[in-house]
Amino acid sequence: MASIFTKIIEGEIPCHKIAEDHKFIAFLDINPNAKGHTLCVPKEEVNKLFDLGEQDYLQLMQFSRQVAKALEKTVSCDRIGVSVIGLEVPHVHVHLIPINEMKDMSFQHKIKMTQEELAALAVDIQKNL
Amino acid sequence: MASIFTKIIEGEIPCHKIAEDHKFIAFLDINPNAKGHTLCVPKEEVNKLFDLGEQDYLQLMQFSRQVAKALEKTVSCDRIGVSVIGLEVPHVHVHLIPINEMKDMSFQHKIKMTQEELAALAVDIQKNL
Repeated sequence: MASIFTKIIEGEIPCHKIAEDHKFIAFLDINPNAKGHTLCVPKEEVNKLFDLGEQDYLQLMQFSRQVAKALEKTVSCDRIGVSVIGLEVPHVHVHLIPINEMKDMSFQHKIKMTQEELAALAVDIQKNL
Repeated sequence: MASIFTKIIEGEIPCHKIAEDHKFIAFLDINPNAKGHTLCVPKEEVNKLFDLGEQDYLQLMQFSRQVAKALEKTVSCDRIGVSVIGLEVPHVHVHLIPINEMKDMSFQHKIKMTQEELAALAVDIQKNL
């Protein structure tokens, strides 16, 4: 069965897109740890980060860096945290999280944003790409 | 003042080293979230991951991938999690954590290992590099 991220990539499920090229997509996490929490995902449905070939892995990291730079310019934060876990969705995703304190990296602590707020934020981040 | 990681790199503070080249070092975290928890650190003392130049950043990620592959071969786990936070030590470090469940990515949950156990583990990981 296609992962939820493949359904997003194929347009079956909507997302607040930040960036996309032929291999990767970045969109806002709809259940964010902090404002600007973004997922960077390879279009190829691979379960584990380190099962990606070296070139695909490095390209994902390069793509994630470009998105992180735009996040830094858009959202007030101390820095952009990075987390790759993948125990819940078996499709590689790099979490980029604008953080100010340790709890922003804890997936137990969530913030509420409306769809309208997420849509407006995605546009703002895109402008800084 | 030199960061604790610079002191490790310069040999002032001992570590259980996994890998080292002219630009990067990897060693076991002495307060691990899980068995095999490793830090990959650039020798240049830069505070934030995304302040590294693109080439240095990509080389750090490439170095981290090589270490992660050795960790996967050495430590029984579901996968290798990645975390970059940096709120406590202002010197870039990539956490590589062999994980089985979400709490292994929580920096509130720690395991106890003796210096002897850490030293033996470092040797085992090195053999898989």
